[in-house]
Amino acid sequence: MTAAQQARLEARHGQLGVTRGVAPGFVQCNLVILRQRHAYDFLLYCQRNQQACPVLEVTDAGDPEPRRIAPGADLRTDLPRYAIYRQGRRENDVPDIATLWEPDFVAFLIGSGITFDQALERAGVPTNKHRWVVRTTLPTEPAGPFHGNLVVTMRWLTPAQAIAATQVSARFPFNHGAPVHIGDPAQIGADLEHPLFGEPVDSIPGEYTPVFWACGVTPQAAAETAKIELMITHAPAHGFVSDLRADEICLP
Amino acid sequence: MTAAQQARLEARHGQLGVTRGVAPGFVQCNLVILRQRHAYDFLLYCQRNQQACPVLEVTDAGDPEPRRIAPGADLRTDLPRYAIYRQGRRENDVPDIATLWEPDFVAFLIGSGITFDQALERAGVPTNKHRWVVRTTLPTEPAGPFHGNLVVTMRWLTPAQAIAATQVSARFPFNHGAPVHIGDPAQIGADLEHPLFGEPVDSIPGEYTPVFWACGVTPQAAAETAKIELMITHAPAHGFVSDLRADEICLP
Repeated sequence: MTAAQQARLEARHGQLGVTRGVAPGFVQCNLVILRQRHAYDFLLYCQRNQQACPVLEVTDAGDPEPRRIAPGADLRTDLPRYAIYRQGRRENDVPDIATLWEPDFVAFLIGSGITFDQALERAGVPTNKHRWVVRTTLPTEPAGPFHGNLVVTMRWLTPAQAIAATQVSARFPFNHGAPVHIGDPAQIGADLEHPLFGEPVDSIPGEYTPVFWACGVTPQAAAETAKIELMITHAPAHGFVSDLRADEICLP
Repeated sequence: MTAAQQARLEARHGQLGVTRGVAPGFVQCNLVILRQRHAYDFLLYCQRNQQACPVLEVTDAGDPEPRRIAPGADLRTDLPRYAIYRQGRRENDVPDIATLWEPDFVAFLIGSGITFDQALERAGVPTNKHRWVVRTTLPTEPAGPFHGNLVVTMRWLTPAQAIAATQVSARFPFNHGAPVHIGDPAQIGADLEHPLFGEPVDSIPGEYTPVFWACGVTPQAAAETAKIELMITHAPAHGFVSDLRADEICLP
């Protein structure tokens, strides 16, 4: 059994928490589940904002198995925690969605930046701290009801780390790729005061510069903004571990 | 006026023929127009077969302007020649589709391998001859009614050229990227006897090896196989010249 299969099995049995650092080398995904009638507009939104929303798989309506990137997996149970949004409002998280699943559900698996953490580490860029998910004022390209601003992942890096991180992440064009911005947060309207998840952004000594990547939470934020009647996603930091290997989807 | 705008204007006025070699440095696209009701399955087919079908833009239903990659252009007139398929059968080509356009038409612009010709030339790989579009027996991932085998572009190259061409094309992950196969055509069931367009494949001296890239005609072939009631595409070798620059969408 691979580390990815192991992680999914643990999630299925309620034995897995946050997925950062779990099954290193395997591609992790953000999950968005919508009803079929929103699937086209959402897929189009992802196509129009590809750097933020690299779609790795779309399931057929009603089929909870991601046959291409994790055959045998079950998206109703194999993530450690799920977030439920109704009319754009988040309800209590749940450990599985087996009883909520309906025949018109379509699941989108979207590449997560966690995927290149290992490659960053190998290049001397620390990944276990100094990371935040923040809103910007950069507009995305709308599609149907989906619209909103780009959400980014931010890290504080030294200039040398920023250069290495740019080169390394550029090799993952199907997983957000190179940064969208380096330097002054104000230039992209990055809201460091109110990160989407976790602690407030640390203030960091002067030799560090902030580096920003398009974040796979962007489409989730767009679906929230659109107040879609029902959307189910992974809970933050509780992603889906696929069978794809990071080294398979990166370039030389 | 850029060379791309000039080319589209000439096409609009019936003064442009094949687009190979036209406006070098600008990204050329294959065009597929379908009715809205087929748009989701087709977009999904492209997502599932991304190497063959790199979607660069999808227009809103009824809107003939590709606002993102060629603002101001008109897809009804700005290609030199169009192919019309009804129930999967090709009718006579037409020079424009202004009178055929309907409010439920959705246009897909798909990256063409012509885009990296210039980069290949700079790397010493000749691009002006020895190129064919052939069917293989490699299945694609189906979506809705769309299914069929991969279509590939083949070139005869020397081993040194094959290595250079692999490196150069890998830098264009959103335009087919690296080859899907090098060497024995039989291994992918490449049908060299019946290329889709143009002359039969030349027999080439022994120092050359065939190199195969996923081809943007694949989705068009899938729509033909699906016998979709109506599909309009660019006529072979008469593509759409976008404002995107090849160097913008390639990696370092």
